[in-house]
Amino acid sequence: MKTAAIIGGGVIGGGWAARFLLNGWDVRVFDPDPQAERKIGEVLANARRSLPGLGNVALPAEGALTFHATVAEAVQGAVWIQESVPERLDLKQKIYGALQAHAPADAVIGSSTSGYKPSQLQEGFDNAAQIVVAHPFNPVYLMPLVEVVTTAANPPEMIEAAKAIITSVGMYPLHLKKEIDAHVADRFLEAVWREALWLVKDGIATTEEIDNAIRYGFGIRWAQMGLFETYRVAGGEAGMKHFLAQFGPCLSWPWTKLMDVPEYNDELVDLIAGQSDAQSGHHSIRDLERIRDDNLVGMMRALSANDWGAGALQNAHDVSRMGAAGLARSMEEVADIAQPVLTQARVVPLDWTDYNGHMTESRYLDAFAQSTDRLMEIIGCDADYIASGGSYFTAETHIRHIDEVHAGQAIQVKTRVILGQGKKMHLWHEMYEGDRLLATGEHMLLHVDLKTRRSAPPAAHIEANLVRLATAQAALPAPEGLGRAIGAPR
Amino acid sequence: MKTAAIIGGGVIGGGWAARFLLNGWDVRVFDPDPQAERKIGEVLANARRSLPGLGNVALPAEGALTFHATVAEAVQGAVWIQESVPERLDLKQKIYGALQAHAPADAVIGSSTSGYKPSQLQEGFDNAAQIVVAHPFNPVYLMPLVEVVTTAANPPEMIEAAKAIITSVGMYPLHLKKEIDAHVADRFLEAVWREALWLVKDGIATTEEIDNAIRYGFGIRWAQMGLFETYRVAGGEAGMKHFLAQFGPCLSWPWTKLMDVPEYNDELVDLIAGQSDAQSGHHSIRDLERIRDDNLVGMMRALSANDWGAGALQNAHDVSRMGAAGLARSMEEVADIAQPVLTQARVVPLDWTDYNGHMTESRYLDAFAQSTDRLMEIIGCDADYIASGGSYFTAETHIRHIDEVHAGQAIQVKTRVILGQGKKMHLWHEMYEGDRLLATGEHMLLHVDLKTRRSAPPAAHIEANLVRLATAQAALPAPEGLGRAIGAPR
Repeated sequence: MKTAAIIGGGVIGGGWAARFLLNGWDVRVFDPDPQAERKIGEVLANARRSLPGLGNVALPAEGALTFHATVAEAVQGAVWIQESVPERLDLKQKIYGALQAHAPADAVIGSSTSGYKPSQLQEGFDNAAQIVVAHPFNPVYLMPLVEVVTTAANPPEMIEAAKAIITSVGMYPLHLKKEIDAHVADRFLEAVWREALWLVKDGIATTEEIDNAIRYGFGIRWAQMGLFETYRVAGGEAGMKHFLAQFGPCLSWPWTKLMDVPEYNDELVDLIAGQSDAQSGHHSIRDLERIRDDNLVGMMRALSANDWGAGALQNAHDVSRMGAAGLARSMEEVADIAQPVLTQARVVPLDWTDYNGHMTESRYLDAFAQSTDRLMEIIGCDADYIASGGSYFTAETHIRHIDEVHAGQAIQVKTRVILGQGKKMHLWHEMYEGDRLLATGEHMLLHVDLKTRRSAPPAAHIEANLVRLATAQAALPAPEGLGRAIGAPR
Repeated sequence: MKTAAIIGGGVIGGGWAARFLLNGWDVRVFDPDPQAERKIGEVLANARRSLPGLGNVALPAEGALTFHATVAEAVQGAVWIQESVPERLDLKQKIYGALQAHAPADAVIGSSTSGYKPSQLQEGFDNAAQIVVAHPFNPVYLMPLVEVVTTAANPPEMIEAAKAIITSVGMYPLHLKKEIDAHVADRFLEAVWREALWLVKDGIATTEEIDNAIRYGFGIRWAQMGLFETYRVAGGEAGMKHFLAQFGPCLSWPWTKLMDVPEYNDELVDLIAGQSDAQSGHHSIRDLERIRDDNLVGMMRALSANDWGAGALQNAHDVSRMGAAGLARSMEEVADIAQPVLTQARVVPLDWTDYNGHMTESRYLDAFAQSTDRLMEIIGCDADYIASGGSYFTAETHIRHIDEVHAGQAIQVKTRVILGQGKKMHLWHEMYEGDRLLATGEHMLLHVDLKTRRSAPPAAHIEANLVRLATAQAALPAPEGLGRAIGAPR
C-alpha cells in the first residue's frame, strides 16, 4: 500500500485525495481548516459516485483516509506529497520548509499551483530536487491532465518516477520542460477569461451566451482534438500550411481585445455574478457538480469506445489493471478452468442507468457482451485473430433480469462454456453484486468468416480451448434456467 | 420542400449544403471553382456517415442537390441563401449585389463570415433587412452553433424566421444583438490562437503538448459547460463571487502574452506545420475527419443521454421530428392498432458499431428497449406516470440476431403486444432494414411500484390500452420464433 500526503484540502486537495484513495493509496491529510474533513468528504462523495465506473475494470480496494494535526505527522511514509494551499508564494515556501524537515527525502513534493514556476517554489531549499509543479484540473478525480513542470534541479529519474505515479492513478503527466508563469493550460484559460470579461463588460454577450458559444461549438471539438489538430483537419487536404496562410493575416486584425485588461471592480463582479445567477441559479452547486460529472463520464466513455483522447488514456489504465482485478487474458491465466471463469469485474458506470434509477436493460447485454469478448480473448479469438478474418457473431441471446443494480455498485460476471463444438459456442453468464445474482445471460454464438460473413469453423487452437473449458466445466450442475423460453414455467 | 442556395462551396459551404440536404431541403449551389462538386461531395459523404444517426429519430428523405452556373439561377425559389465565399469584404459585397438583383426579397441572406460585422456586409444595399451574419462552426453538419448577428436594419420578424429555420435543421441560433469584429466565439479562438503561437514560438510547448493540455483538461469541461458555469461550479458553495474574488487578482499578473502578437513569418509557419506533421502526420486528413466525427457523435450522444448541452438541443430536434417520422406518442396517434405498431425509425449511429464492423449486439437490445419505451408512452406509461411512482421493468428478454446491419443504415422496429394482463406486458419487436428482418426481440415486463420495487398492477387506463392493443392484434398470425428457447430446433 502506497501513501500520499495531502497538504491543503479544499476542492483541489480533496480531488487529489480522492484520486489516490480510489486508486488504492492510503491518504494522510493536513489542513488547519476545521471544515477540512467535511469539505474533503463532499469531494470524495462525488468522486466515489463517478470515478470507479469511469473505466471498464474495477479499481483496487480503497485506501485509508486519515486526518493529521501537523505536517510532520501527515507526511510520515509518504512517497507523494501534494501541496494545494492558497496561491501565495510565502505560504507555499513556509509549507515546503516544514515538509523538508519531516518528509522522506525521496518523496515527490508536487504543487498544485496554477501560476508559480517551479524555480520560484524551489528557491532557497536544499532539496529542491524533490519539488515539482504538478498542476491538476478540476474535478481532479475525473480530469486526466496534470501539468508537470520541472527545472534543472529535478533529476531525470525523479521526474520519470513522478510521471509513473501520476499515470498509475489514471492521470496524464504533461511534462513541460521550460517553465513559464501559469504553465500552458492556464495561459489559455486566462486569455479566454480576459476576453470574456471584456465581452460581458461591453455588453456584447451575457455569461450564458458566452457559455453557449463555447459548449455548442469549439468546446465539443476541443474535448477530443486540441487547437492545432482541429485546425489541421479544417485546413483539409491542403494541410496546416494552407490553414496558416488563411488565418495568419487575422493576427493583425482587431479580433481580440487582449492588448488591454478590463478594470476589476465591484461593478464588474456584480455584473458577472448577476448574469451567472440568472443562467445557473436554478441549479444548486451540488446539482451542477453531479450534472458536470455525469457529462464528463459519459463523454469520456464515448472517447474510450473510440480509443481516442482521454478515452485512450482510460483504456490504457484499464488494461494495466486487469491482472490486479483478477481478469485473465489467456487460458494460462485462468485460475481454474473447471469453474466458471471471471470475465468481468467492474463498477456500474453513471451512463448505464435510466429513468427508473437502475442499470438499464441494454447495459446487461453490454456487460455480457464484454464478458463474451473477454472469453473470446482467453480462448485465442483476440484482436490479431479477428484482424486475420475470423470472429464470433451472436445468433441468439436470452437474458433474465433477476435483481436491480445501481450506478456505483461493483459487479462481476462469471462465465461457463456450455458447448464449444465446430462453429458453435454456447455460453452461460451470471452477473453478481457480491453473492446477489442480478441476471443470467445465455448466448449462442457462431464462428464466422469475416470476408464471406457466413459461419465457418474456427482455428483449431480456438476450438481446442473451447472444448477444454466445456469438458472441464461439464461436471458442474446445469445452470438453473438453461434453455428456458420466455413465459415458460420455472 | 424548402430550397436553400449555397453561394461558395468548400468546407463551410459544403457543410451548410449537407445540413440542409439531410434535413430534407433542396440545395442549389453556385461556386465557380471547377472542383466544387467534388469538394462538396466529400463533405457530404462525411455528413451522410455521421449526421443521420446523431439523433434517435430518422431525418426526412434527402432533398435534391443541384449545381448552377450563375448566382441568378442558384437563388431561384430559395428561402435561405448562405454565402461562404473567401473572407474579403469587396468579394462579399459583389456577391450581395448579384443576390439582391435576383433573389426573392424575403429570402434570408446569411453570411458565414468569421470576422465582418453585419453592418459592414449590409452597407450600401437597399434591402439590408435580408442580410445577417450566420456564422457556423466546422464541421457544419455536426456542430450546432450558429452565431446570428443582426443590426437595426433587420426586422424582428425576419430575425425570428431566420432563427426558426436554423433550429429546424438541428442547429442552435445564438443571437448576438450587438455587433463586434469576429463576433463572440472566434474572439476566444483568436485569443487562444495568439497565445498558442507564442508558446510554440518561445519553445515552451509543441503543438502536440498544447493539444494535450486542451483535450485532457478544459476542452472536456467546455464540451458540456462553458467558461462561467464551469467556474461557478469550481467556486463551490461560496458561488461566483467567491470564485471572482479568488481569480480577480490574476488579471494583473503576467499570465498571458496577449499584450503583443508574434510576428507571422515563414519561420513560425514552418515551426508549426512541422510540429503538426510530427503530431498528426501518420493520419490522413480523411482519417482525421472521420475520427473527429466519430468522437463528436459519441460525445454528443452521451450528452443527449443526459439531456444536456448540445445533447439537449439534439433531443428537442428529435422530438420535433417524431410525427414526421411516423412515430406515435399516444393511442390516438397509432395508425392502425390491429397491426404491429411502428415504435422506432432511426439510422444506426456511428457509436453503435463494434470491432466486427456492424451494429454491436447490445445495441439491438438498446433499440428494442427504446421501442418498449415508445410503446409505454403510447399506452400512457409516460414520464408523468413514471414520476407518479409506476413503471415497467423488463424481467426477461430473448433476442435472435438474424442479419447484420451497419452504421448509417435506416432501421425500423415494429411492435406487437402478445399479452397485456394484470402486471404482465409481453411484447414482440421485429427490427427491419427495409423489408429485411434483422432481429426479433421477445420481452416479458412486469409493472412495478417504484417505491416498493415490487410488482403491482398498473393504472386502469394503461391496462385498458394494453388489452385493446393485444385484442386488436390477436388476429395476426403468431410471430415465427415466439416462445423459442436457445438451442431449440427451428
